[in-house]
Amino acid sequence: MNKLKQGFTQIYTGNGKGKTTAALGQAVRAAGNGFRSYILMLMKEFPYNEVSALSALKDFITIEQVGKDDYVYRKELPPQEEIDKVKLALERAKQNMLSGNYELIILDEVLVATYFGLITAEDILPLINEKPFDVELILTGRYCPEELIDKADLVTEMKEVKHYYKKGILARRGIES
Amino acid sequence: MNKLKQGFTQIYTGNGKGKTTAALGQAVRAAGNGFRSYILMLMKEFPYNEVSALSALKDFITIEQVGKDDYVYRKELPPQEEIDKVKLALERAKQNMLSGNYELIILDEVLVATYFGLITAEDILPLINEKPFDVELILTGRYCPEELIDKADLVTEMKEVKHYYKKGILARRGIES
Repeated sequence: MNKLKQGFTQIYTGNGKGKTTAALGQAVRAAGNGFRSYILMLMKEFPYNEVSALSALKDFITIEQVGKDDYVYRKELPPQEEIDKVKLALERAKQNMLSGNYELIILDEVLVATYFGLITAEDILPLINEKPFDVELILTGRYCPEELIDKADLVTEMKEVKHYYKKGILARRGIES
Repeated sequence: MNKLKQGFTQIYTGNGKGKTTAALGQAVRAAGNGFRSYILMLMKEFPYNEVSALSALKDFITIEQVGKDDYVYRKELPPQEEIDKVKLALERAKQNMLSGNYELIILDEVLVATYFGLITAEDILPLINEKPFDVELILTGRYCPEELIDKADLVTEMKEVKHYYKKGILARRGIES
């Protein structure tokens, strides 16, 4: 089994496209090197296309989808049930990170989950602080709290320069979702 | 066979991480929806890890790697042989785009290829101009020429906010390459 010599904490944030897909592409590249990834996708509890495609790489990539996001669209606070689900999922992700079974841990949309009140930066900090030296940890989502940027090794802002959404086009199946 | 209703021209540029991986993740997501992708990777003529991993999705994703980048490190202009190879590859990519066999065409590092003198923006413009309505075209690479930004529907700048390269760490196998 290949081992990662040195792992870092990466953040993909910003209002632009490519945060989740960059994390997925990273898991695919890692799989090509024999690395195993655990991906926790928050606020995406319905079938996303990438999940079925990545089943072709199931020996290397494990995906768990936890939590809804319908309250966001209703402009409501998240129900306690959703908060509990996400906190438990983060705890499972931490156990997976510490298990020695994965070289790459991806917490997709974990940053935007802080913005919508599901968790706080303090719920994420233990994962960064306890990350084993040989594990790569990737956090994605808009609205990254400043204290997590301070803690990360690599931060990339995906910045929207031009977007056809602005022309009134909705998200397209197979491209945006 | 699923068809893409409306395809756009996307650009991933900037000095940050995640341009190529976002394009790869996009191809994986598209595969999950039954879309077929053709990926031309320029200036990467040696085995990249993502290529072997994506062979698990070979019914949906076709990858071609064309061209070296050693002259960049020697701070030389590209040899004519490399220029010819890349121009021919772009022509093949255009034929693939027009063939009806692919919903997604990715030209990886095609933008930085303009910076290093392999091609010019004028070599890329015909692909944007002749893109069929139901095909998505993705261009990646640093140093995107302004005239291509004008022509694209969606432009995302991957902006480096913080990077451990700056701490003297080299590219890591399975993560950066």
